[in-house]
Amino acid sequence: SRSISLAVIPGDGIGQEVVAQGLKVLNAVLPQDVKLETKEYDLGAQRWHRTGETLPDAELEALKGHDAILLGAIGDPSVPSGVLERGLLLKLRFAFDHFVNLRPSKLFPNTATPLAGRPDIDFVVVREGTEGPYTGNGGSLRTGTPAEVATEVSVNTAYGVERVVRDAFERANARPRKKLTLVHKNNVLVYAGHMWKNIFDRVATEYPEVTTDYLHVDAATIFFVTQPERFDVIVTDNLFGDILTDLAAAVTGGIGLAASGNINPTGTFPSMFEPVHGSAPDIAGQGKADPTATILSVALLLRHLGYEAEAVRIEDAVCADLAERGGHLPGPSGSGGGATSRTTDQIGDALAVRVAN
Amino acid sequence: SRSISLAVIPGDGIGQEVVAQGLKVLNAVLPQDVKLETKEYDLGAQRWHRTGETLPDAELEALKGHDAILLGAIGDPSVPSGVLERGLLLKLRFAFDHFVNLRPSKLFPNTATPLAGRPDIDFVVVREGTEGPYTGNGGSLRTGTPAEVATEVSVNTAYGVERVVRDAFERANARPRKKLTLVHKNNVLVYAGHMWKNIFDRVATEYPEVTTDYLHVDAATIFFVTQPERFDVIVTDNLFGDILTDLAAAVTGGIGLAASGNINPTGTFPSMFEPVHGSAPDIAGQGKADPTATILSVALLLRHLGYEAEAVRIEDAVCADLAERGGHLPGPSGSGGGATSRTTDQIGDALAVRVAN
Ligand SMILES: CC(C)[C@H](C(=O)O)[C@@H](O)C(=O)O
Ligand SMILES: CC(C)[C@H](C(=O)O)[C@@H](O)C(=O)O
Repeated sequence: SRSISLAVIPGDGIGQEVVAQGLKVLNAVLPQDVKLETKEYDLGAQRWHRTGETLPDAELEALKGHDAILLGAIGDPSVPSGVLERGLLLKLRFAFDHFVNLRPSKLFPNTATPLAGRPDIDFVVVREGTEGPYTGNGGSLRTGTPAEVATEVSVNTAYGVERVVRDAFERANARPRKKLTLVHKNNVLVYAGHMWKNIFDRVATEYPEVTTDYLHVDAATIFFVTQPERFDVIVTDNLFGDILTDLAAAVTGGIGLAASGNINPTGTFPSMFEPVHGSAPDIAGQGKADPTATILSVALLLRHLGYEAEAVRIEDAVCADLAERGGHLPGPSGSGGGATSRTTDQIGDALAVRVAN
Repeated sequence: SRSISLAVIPGDGIGQEVVAQGLKVLNAVLPQDVKLETKEYDLGAQRWHRTGETLPDAELEALKGHDAILLGAIGDPSVPSGVLERGLLLKLRFAFDHFVNLRPSKLFPNTATPLAGRPDIDFVVVREGTEGPYTGNGGSLRTGTPAEVATEVSVNTAYGVERVVRDAFERANARPRKKLTLVHKNNVLVYAGHMWKNIFDRVATEYPEVTTDYLHVDAATIFFVTQPERFDVIVTDNLFGDILTDLAAAVTGGIGLAASGNINPTGTFPSMFEPVHGSAPDIAGQGKADPTATILSVALLLRHLGYEAEAVRIEDAVCADLAERGGHLPGPSGSGGGATSRTTDQIGDALAVRVAN
């Protein structure tokens, strides 16, 4: 009989609420014969306030034993900026070698996009997750004085770039439109940018059916709002991917709907699934958070573990729910949203019912 | 009697055409007693193909002698990416210490924004121009091999950050709304990000009337499309500013309208004014390029040289022209645009007539 051992990190703010709905839908969609075991990990702002710990070694070790991780949201204004991001969230992504940060963007029916004319948006960003400006490689000299110098080093390796580029070509090749766009800034960041471009062009020769394209990151943001339908799969570096996927979430109806997977495709370490949105402390505990992004992240989790039919059931349910009910809650961070105002729980219930059928 | 000694670098692609219109309007708006002397510099792709030179020392020296520089556009697909950007455009910005890269964004009447509901957009981005990831400080080891490592170093100094932050506070303080937003990514780029934030907070105490705000760059892109009216003045680093201002141009009717100034506020070196758009080789020489971004850059140039009334005349003329005629040409890079399709020359003529009155 099959089983899933799932680590759950609810985290901060609305994390707890949205994760509860994610688990509700997960339980509803899983076949009877699949045994789901979940273990909750108390990590985030409260833990840090209580103990000063962000992610102790023992817990990092324990997390390795699970098949996957579901994470709600990390961060609170009471914690200095960077402490939990670097000490917990990014530590997990780096320790578990989540080199594919997968972020699909789709404009679902009836959702409120800020774009006039409701373009047809359906693309996926493959964001590199373990290198670039996110390595924490940098420093500050004479901190706090008028002579301070602060550096941030973007570290890029052929090893790291090639594996994520290959993953993106595979994904593009498996989609009907078979189109892959590399986004970088190789006219300014010439060292990293040229390496990305050269590797991209070389791997492209192995995928003759995939149409390729290159855009500077600044130009890419223009097309995100003027012509988002031109994109199919995008591969890009860690920081550009961070920026582009928030913008993508905004144009597809808000960050309340944007799912993500931090994937280690080799299976050496568990992959981690989380909504793109943050902890939104301003609306925490009020049943106002849209759990859809988390529920769609559960779909990515299921797909990663081989439950393709169940992943599709969740995605179809979200689509049908939006088509029927229209809009969703104003998403975390005040963006997105629509006409109806069901509670977090009601949206979770509605989707659980749909996937169970 | 007054005089302006202007260096003109038409550059590549549509650069020549749009600069011609910029000069036409400049001539029309200047009072009779101001003597305008222009000297053209042959720099860009053709020069590089002919001589292998991007910006020889002699020309860099000669450029120093002018009061200001008007630049069209630099770049051509026939030149390897980065050669002209680093060797000419960025070399000018760095050599002339253009630490304030000023980019106003305004949604003019009748222009086609991709945003539904036509929000009220009128903000200015103060982009740092001499530091950050643009320093060219980086390298590549074992280039072209599977063991390649490529780095890009973002260099930030308290000296460089404080001067641009002060400039932004001055600008915010002079505007009716008096609001300044710092954009960075200090939860990940903790060294540079915290330095920016600390300096920003310290300078803020000297401007008690300015309301301040901080946003991560990813969140900022969301607000650019969902709530652009929330911004008044934005100060940010070189790379974030590059990305945000292209997005800003897109939401305010396209890159065909976006002006910029590379300003050395101390006056030690000449400041340089250029449209945000590139050389758009696909439409070069066809009279299809919208010269408005260049003409608005001429307004910034005039303001910088103390001709405030003339700057306002140009801006008012653009506003009136758009209000009356509606839309403009599809901008360079296929973005923006509107209903009418006057030629480059016709738009320049129309604006020259308006400012002369
Ligand atoms: C919270 C932050 C560290 C994170 C990132 O920058 O990757 C977030 O913005 C995201 O996109 O998942
Ligand atoms: C051409 C390029 C070097 C330049 C930049 O990145 O600054 C351009 O995109 C701009 O915004 O002026």
